[in-house]
Amino acid sequence: MNILPVEFPRFVPNQHELWISTDIHEYCRIIKANFNASSWWLISDSQVHRECYARFAEAFKLAHEVIILPEGEESKSLKSCETIWNKMEEAQADRNAVVIALGGGMITDLAGFAASCWKRGIRFLFIPTSLLAMVDAAIGGKTGIDWRHGKNLLGLFSLPSLVVSDTTWLQTLSPRELKSGFAECLKHGLVAEETYWKRLSSRSFEEQEWEFVVYRSQLIKAEIVKTDPDEQWMRKILNFGHTLGHALESLCLELEISLLHGEAIAWGMQMEAALSKQFSTLSQAQYEEIVATIESLQYPIPTLDFANPEIENKFIYYLRNDKKNKGNEIRLSLLSRIGHCHYDIAVPESEILPVVRQHFAPDNA
Amino acid sequence: MNILPVEFPRFVPNQHELWISTDIHEYCRIIKANFNASSWWLISDSQVHRECYARFAEAFKLAHEVIILPEGEESKSLKSCETIWNKMEEAQADRNAVVIALGGGMITDLAGFAASCWKRGIRFLFIPTSLLAMVDAAIGGKTGIDWRHGKNLLGLFSLPSLVVSDTTWLQTLSPRELKSGFAECLKHGLVAEETYWKRLSSRSFEEQEWEFVVYRSQLIKAEIVKTDPDEQWMRKILNFGHTLGHALESLCLELEISLLHGEAIAWGMQMEAALSKQFSTLSQAQYEEIVATIESLQYPIPTLDFANPEIENKFIYYLRNDKKNKGNEIRLSLLSRIGHCHYDIAVPESEILPVVRQHFAPDNA
Repeated sequence: MNILPVEFPRFVPNQHELWISTDIHEYCRIIKANFNASSWWLISDSQVHRECYARFAEAFKLAHEVIILPEGEESKSLKSCETIWNKMEEAQADRNAVVIALGGGMITDLAGFAASCWKRGIRFLFIPTSLLAMVDAAIGGKTGIDWRHGKNLLGLFSLPSLVVSDTTWLQTLSPRELKSGFAECLKHGLVAEETYWKRLSSRSFEEQEWEFVVYRSQLIKAEIVKTDPDEQWMRKILNFGHTLGHALESLCLELEISLLHGEAIAWGMQMEAALSKQFSTLSQAQYEEIVATIESLQYPIPTLDFANPEIENKFIYYLRNDKKNKGNEIRLSLLSRIGHCHYDIAVPESEILPVVRQHFAPDNA
Repeated sequence: MNILPVEFPRFVPNQHELWISTDIHEYCRIIKANFNASSWWLISDSQVHRECYARFAEAFKLAHEVIILPEGEESKSLKSCETIWNKMEEAQADRNAVVIALGGGMITDLAGFAASCWKRGIRFLFIPTSLLAMVDAAIGGKTGIDWRHGKNLLGLFSLPSLVVSDTTWLQTLSPRELKSGFAECLKHGLVAEETYWKRLSSRSFEEQEWEFVVYRSQLIKAEIVKTDPDEQWMRKILNFGHTLGHALESLCLELEISLLHGEAIAWGMQMEAALSKQFSTLSQAQYEEIVATIESLQYPIPTLDFANPEIENKFIYYLRNDKKNKGNEIRLSLLSRIGHCHYDIAVPESEILPVVRQHFAPDNA
């Protein structure tokens, strides 16, 4: 047999820049000067368009196509990609077209995926408007859309050329949305940096300094992702709270129960902190500290009746279809103590369900 | 403004192996031993399934899911991807699932794209069954599907783990299909290696030695792609014959005129060779040598009436929407002499159309 090994230097860009600035005129000027775009495509959702577009357009000035998708997770779909691709085909957008995703995580995930598939990849940049997108969704190169009932089942590792975090946009968020994003910041402290956790948990939500929070969370996430970009090992610690959190989120999406991503993750972290006591070495005292901090934020409780076996079976379905599983095992990232997280810990379903019932059907636990 | 540059080591695999072997039991054994797959997915089309599946299944033996798509370019669509993703979701295919694309270029392009998007990329390998796929489609990391009327408008640079070329499969091809693939081999000689061109053109089609041809064409293509994987400069020489060829192919697809990819490229090369005299330095003698060789292969002539302005306008539409254009200019890769090609040569539409008419509506040229 003739074997020819072939190594390619690189196919896709592997570097980008994270900017933090509130001077929209300055960053728009630098963006326009640096990209040499044949056309500009602004992708947004209806809510963001209402709240943010005027400020952007006033500063950006250059001609650009605008694609506005309906707000909400339902838009993170192949159908939305088709809307984008149809418009690009009609306008004959070439390989030097540049996409600007202005919005929350739904928009950055979706626009990054759509841009990466168009003509084998055009440049895209993110201007996240939500805290969640600034500290999480926009950082680390994960793009994707939902498929049928599974979150992010279709997607790519693909980097934006640039992420510009402008904390001015946070003023457009409701307190509920801001608090949702804050859950991911807490996670960064819990899995990687106790001093950051202490700093966040020692002051009230109203007293947080957002520019610092964005900077610190981006730094922690970028460091972890750099070590392991395609999630073979270390990056998995960022999944703390996300296995149960995602299943909860998918379930609520199907049942049309309102639950934001960060809220699902806050519940997921509480449940996975409980499992961290059982399947890792988290102490009772630190567990209580975590629960107290999350509870003080008063995340809404989704009205789910886990005593109903139909609900529980749907939850199990989502849990089993989690991207992170290997074969038939449920694998979690769990805390050994605050600031330290382990991954790929196999936990039997039979041990997970009582913890879920305890949180959502306490009378039947 | 705070600027944090972040460099990631790598997101996607950048190496793979090209195997040439006719010992299907040997390569199946090595594949099974090396991939440690949680599940196997064989993707094929109805024609290939009929002609090739029995031999594959007898050698592969292990359990695998089979997805059979209708034969023909129409299957290179988002709809086919949806069929694949639906089955993967139903079977809860995890990140260690492995896709085997058994088929021609339509199947390798499609299956590579579908696998690369599933859960942010699972491993896939190609067993090309057509000459075209062995020497071209399967080599170099381009995957993709057609979108509306544009060929390969959606796609990714994404490498298979492995390409196994087994010339035994060539026996399943009609002479027409084999000849279609041969056009790309001629192109490899024309753009990069005069001695290879001489060797191919000095013997009849029936006398070609396919194992040598596959090896030599793969080597030439891999060398070019390695130098410039994402087609910023040098890789563009592989587009010789493809700008006019693709437009012709898209037009015939829309009009339901039967024309294989390699046949379209053979016509594209003849027309672009004519333009190479005008816009580069190709000599009349070498031009005639190229035309004589291609004509001796007797590629079928698509019945297109370029005297009809509606047909010509459709052709212009496809020409303008070519992925390789920059802004409004048509850019071609043209020969300076046999074995040497230049790229990004701007040629006005007004100079292209007479050449097209000369080939397809000679009375009105």
